[in-house]
Amino acid sequence: MYYIGVDIGGTGIKAGIVDEKGNIILKSSVPTEKGIDYKGLAKSIYNLLQTVLADARIAADDIKSIGMGCPGTIDAKNGMVVYANNINLTNAPLCEELKKYIDKPIYIDNDANCAALGEFFALGDDTVSDFVAITLGTGIGGGVVINKKLYSGFKGAGAELGHMVIEKGGEGCSCGRKGCWEAYASATALIRETKKAADKNPASYIAKLIEENGGNANGKMVWDAKEAGDETAQKVIDQYVENLSEGLANIINSFRPEIIAIGGGVCRQGDNLLNPLKDALKGKIYGGDLTESSRIEIAKLGNDAGIIGAAFLGK
Amino acid sequence: MYYIGVDIGGTGIKAGIVDEKGNIILKSSVPTEKGIDYKGLAKSIYNLLQTVLADARIAADDIKSIGMGCPGTIDAKNGMVVYANNINLTNAPLCEELKKYIDKPIYIDNDANCAALGEFFALGDDTVSDFVAITLGTGIGGGVVINKKLYSGFKGAGAELGHMVIEKGGEGCSCGRKGCWEAYASATALIRETKKAADKNPASYIAKLIEENGGNANGKMVWDAKEAGDETAQKVIDQYVENLSEGLANIINSFRPEIIAIGGGVCRQGDNLLNPLKDALKGKIYGGDLTESSRIEIAKLGNDAGIIGAAFLGK
Repeated sequence: MYYIGVDIGGTGIKAGIVDEKGNIILKSSVPTEKGIDYKGLAKSIYNLLQTVLADARIAADDIKSIGMGCPGTIDAKNGMVVYANNINLTNAPLCEELKKYIDKPIYIDNDANCAALGEFFALGDDTVSDFVAITLGTGIGGGVVINKKLYSGFKGAGAELGHMVIEKGGEGCSCGRKGCWEAYASATALIRETKKAADKNPASYIAKLIEENGGNANGKMVWDAKEAGDETAQKVIDQYVENLSEGLANIINSFRPEIIAIGGGVCRQGDNLLNPLKDALKGKIYGGDLTESSRIEIAKLGNDAGIIGAAFLGK
Repeated sequence: MYYIGVDIGGTGIKAGIVDEKGNIILKSSVPTEKGIDYKGLAKSIYNLLQTVLADARIAADDIKSIGMGCPGTIDAKNGMVVYANNINLTNAPLCEELKKYIDKPIYIDNDANCAALGEFFALGDDTVSDFVAITLGTGIGGGVVINKKLYSGFKGAGAELGHMVIEKGGEGCSCGRKGCWEAYASATALIRETKKAADKNPASYIAKLIEENGGNANGKMVWDAKEAGDETAQKVIDQYVENLSEGLANIINSFRPEIIAIGGGVCRQGDNLLNPLKDALKGKIYGGDLTESSRIEIAKLGNDAGIIGAAFLGK
């Protein structure tokens, strides 16, 4: 038997057929129509599913269930998109609507939650019960697995781990609050601080790299500049890692999952990120050496996590 | 049938017989012997249980199970006190030891967790699955109920909700970290800030109240002074409530329990605390009015929460 995972995004809808082991057999995508309502969205998803099934030569009878990941606040119990600002859905009964086209069990959850569930299964370790995945991107996405099941709290509105304040009254966050972890440890924050530091230190190597790129910084440059021995870049990274560790320590002290997987572009740095991060966490974990802390790992699945996790909502 | 709950503390051990509805039939206590080891502690607990059973004229046959709450890090699965600094136990198999005296199911968990479980049952609402209790005392104790069960993470070391940083690099905390919520929103923090403000404003009413009390402030004085119209006291309370709201918003954005119960002396202020607190939370909850936030309530059980929750570990 197979599962279908759908990853609904502001610009595109991706769907994949996933086997019992979490391998994607085949995937495809279509653009998300601007201003589409939930009825149009369900139709669009159905058409995409027809395409992937036909392309993979898999019969609908061999599909056990369909799962969808969607940004925003999702009422998983009732199959509803409560609110998703970048696809303009409010109180949309998406599961019920899709069910009109396909008579299969249909599930839905928040896209970051689905990605977390995907990463949880990718651990391939049945002994782990409690797990957190975070993605350092435009913002910080988070997903929590407790007792091997997704946890997102009352009406699905929890697990917004990027929106824990680590500096009250600090940097403004896209959510309206001030001082959220996301405003310090997302890729966006790293790029912002890189630019600031380069502006202040026009003779630095990082300033030169940005200038050569037409004045645009990205999340990789600061690591390249640090690697080349640039002191300004080193300071930006030191502060970034320190800020990242504050939020991670908050997650450890509150949830204490057995494993935390970190994803997003910055994780391509691997041990260059993990080693200083582990150092920065020292002294911040409640109980210190007397307790066993959460293990910090790099996420395994990358962009496929959302499809695989959504598929496994029905597993 | 009845349950026995034991609340182990640094100064005393309390035990109570609890009925199915969560009423304490009878309770008693003995002092905690200084430097006692786990074998002595188990013996001491057994003697106390004998006393309460005899006093309540309840036969051991009518007891379903025994639960213990203990400060520190508890490995509930293995019935072990991993570490408890104020009663000097490390890797102590307390359940196994007590079992030598009484052949009943015996459970153990962290004392703040037990208090949270007690408050959860005190809600008397079967529809609530996810719940957080916090106690604003010397520190901030926290307990998390997820899916109607205590959640404390990997090896029981999580749910240390007071040790989420709300101001990185801020006030020193007893745990060694800087800027923990506990260092801003515990009763200790309120008293510290009250003293500071009184020292800076010697003509204020709060300064007068402290002086009249031999230079000692307590957690109630600042509320009394505010009630009398003292501006200095009002400012201290405003800042305290703001700090309290930052940590609560972190809990809501991450755990999003259906209900958060707040306990501790400061909660005697009731609506004088709750109303400004609810105002301070506005704008800090992810999703704002589009999602349903956690309900904030005053804890119901007070000091008995620990005994009742411990008793219900076996329920």
